[in-house]
Amino acid sequence: MNELSLCANSPTSPSPPASLAAEGVLRSLFRGWAYIEARFDILQPMNDGRPYDLDQTYNVADETGGMLSLRPDFTSLVAQEAATMGRGIIRPLRRSYCGTAFRKPDRAGDRRREIRQSGVELIGTSGPLADAEIVTLASEGLAALQLKDAQIHLGHVGFVHALLRSSNLTEEGKTTVCNLLARHDRTALAIVLTNQGVSRKTAVALGAVLDLVGSTDVLDQARRLTRDPDALRALEQLEELIALLSRSELPVPVIIDLTEVRDRSYYTGIRFEGFVPASGFPILRGGRYDELVQQFGKAEPAVGCAFEIDLIAPMVAEKGTADIKTILLRSPANRWTELMMQARALRAQGHRIALDVSSLPPDQLNAYRSAYGISRVLESESNEALDAKGDQR
Amino acid sequence: MNELSLCANSPTSPSPPASLAAEGVLRSLFRGWAYIEARFDILQPMNDGRPYDLDQTYNVADETGGMLSLRPDFTSLVAQEAATMGRGIIRPLRRSYCGTAFRKPDRAGDRRREIRQSGVELIGTSGPLADAEIVTLASEGLAALQLKDAQIHLGHVGFVHALLRSSNLTEEGKTTVCNLLARHDRTALAIVLTNQGVSRKTAVALGAVLDLVGSTDVLDQARRLTRDPDALRALEQLEELIALLSRSELPVPVIIDLTEVRDRSYYTGIRFEGFVPASGFPILRGGRYDELVQQFGKAEPAVGCAFEIDLIAPMVAEKGTADIKTILLRSPANRWTELMMQARALRAQGHRIALDVSSLPPDQLNAYRSAYGISRVLESESNEALDAKGDQR
Repeated sequence: MNELSLCANSPTSPSPPASLAAEGVLRSLFRGWAYIEARFDILQPMNDGRPYDLDQTYNVADETGGMLSLRPDFTSLVAQEAATMGRGIIRPLRRSYCGTAFRKPDRAGDRRREIRQSGVELIGTSGPLADAEIVTLASEGLAALQLKDAQIHLGHVGFVHALLRSSNLTEEGKTTVCNLLARHDRTALAIVLTNQGVSRKTAVALGAVLDLVGSTDVLDQARRLTRDPDALRALEQLEELIALLSRSELPVPVIIDLTEVRDRSYYTGIRFEGFVPASGFPILRGGRYDELVQQFGKAEPAVGCAFEIDLIAPMVAEKGTADIKTILLRSPANRWTELMMQARALRAQGHRIALDVSSLPPDQLNAYRSAYGISRVLESESNEALDAKGDQR
Repeated sequence: MNELSLCANSPTSPSPPASLAAEGVLRSLFRGWAYIEARFDILQPMNDGRPYDLDQTYNVADETGGMLSLRPDFTSLVAQEAATMGRGIIRPLRRSYCGTAFRKPDRAGDRRREIRQSGVELIGTSGPLADAEIVTLASEGLAALQLKDAQIHLGHVGFVHALLRSSNLTEEGKTTVCNLLARHDRTALAIVLTNQGVSRKTAVALGAVLDLVGSTDVLDQARRLTRDPDALRALEQLEELIALLSRSELPVPVIIDLTEVRDRSYYTGIRFEGFVPASGFPILRGGRYDELVQQFGKAEPAVGCAFEIDLIAPMVAEKGTADIKTILLRSPANRWTELMMQARALRAQGHRIALDVSSLPPDQLNAYRSAYGISRVLESESNEALDAKGDQR
């Protein structure tokens, strides 16, 4: 489970975890969009209004007998901050985060205990421009990570939620239907709708949602399924967003997808996920959640997204140590002063300098060089030391 | 407990946590010294050979009924990796880390549950050059963090350990004596030595250690206290290290201090801590620990140090949002294409661009500008947009 892995093609080299590189790319993107990074304690008061059940979280006793949970997500922490400590902060508030959340492995197949997420939340503003900002940023993130054939599936939960509202389904039944739609399980969906005695008209409409995946004509198809004003308003909002997005050449294609209705209790508006062919799970999730902040005391609109670093990291081009240009500086101990001066000067030029503290014998030197990507070996006596700008020797 | 704090001088602005800036400074230093960052799971098998007691760690049941501990440190994880997965990696191995460790608040006064540490480990090499590398790196770290009046207290546990070996103290008594020396508690030390019936000669020598703090003449004073060969060898090693360090103009002063003997069971050679006048606790700890890696199956020498980010962050110059130059880009929704193109071009030049997605009215615009350090407001119609390199308007 440690990310500390040996470099695949060279069992003699250590390599930095790919997750670090992926997070670095996203951090820099978030900064460019003026998001300010937040940091939260990992140990949080147990079940403090957060949208997770106690059997999903890891819980520990604190030293006073109280209970703590390992934070199960970041969005609810940002929402809590916005509603409490951050009340006086002028809106819109742009917050990013980068870290580990914890959830007990679920039966659906996600066996991870620790989930690395990097994401953004835009709090205090509704409307298509805010939605477009988040989808555009998400798309630029997937592009910056250089993920092959990535695409975004974009929907609006309001359409399906409106169809469900006019049905006679229980709350549990509605959640089940949302999950089956998201999984595209046509057979199970038909069985559930029949068993729960859903009216033929609604059942047909819900079943037809499975085909509402594609380009803008999907919106016209959807309009023919219902006259529910909430459902139609959802389509209008989605159409307005799509119109904005289509005017700015997103670097990753966006597919309209009205089955984007997972996490029914959480999202309230647009909803999207990012996929690549290689991954069975979404590598990006986002959407509008206008009711979460209210749970912490203050109603306000919010939209955000999170990148699933654990799924993304293995796909980020494994560069190993190959492109880390390091210079190995050697000298006898009696030339320590010169060695230190050279090392400082070279580091100030941006080089990575490994000191040969163990005075490697010649037969080990080559193995060391190739294991650590040493582009150059410099003896501190050498006059060339301070012009060491090349990478070959 | 959240680091997500409001900016001290402006309750309307969010500010990034100072710990991020401190970690960024150290990460870049470690990289320059050719350390490769490692990343470890937070949830680790309980008590897996690590040097912490179960009542010091937070422990949780996993989903199979096994027990996990929140990692109590990083050094033992690096040591474990080196001895197991990293056996084939060519030495010396340079590893860095940056993250959170977890320990139950202790009675000695440290109330933190979560401890942010950034550090380095140099594994597989002994001798003064390796020790000098770590002390020099530590000193450059304190300097790079721009901590005022920082200094390093440097000793060698071998001296006191040798004096203790020739005493009749129990293991527990030896640990107590080390802690009292580290705390400079002369009175309690005298009482313990008397009560435990330590010979007059050893008691005098141990008491005299409290005065072995200062410049190189401390080493001569120390030599007069004992003829124990292990104690004298420790002084020799320390002297050799000091000689190296004195030849490279460390940016932070080093004080010789033979009371540097905290954590008796852990360190085996040189031992140092970093202090600033403002902090009651060491902000940096390090030393040689040649016996830890062996606990995981393979004996090899190791030396390292860790920076205490939580103690350092509040001292790192609070820059708030003042030096984050952000441009607020505005446009009517019908100019979205131009807005996106301008935003991309400006971001590519390194600017942070906030989009005015909520179309702030003029009376809120100024408050927004000052809260978020907006150096410039650009209307997307404006021709000046793409030359926006200045920071004033």
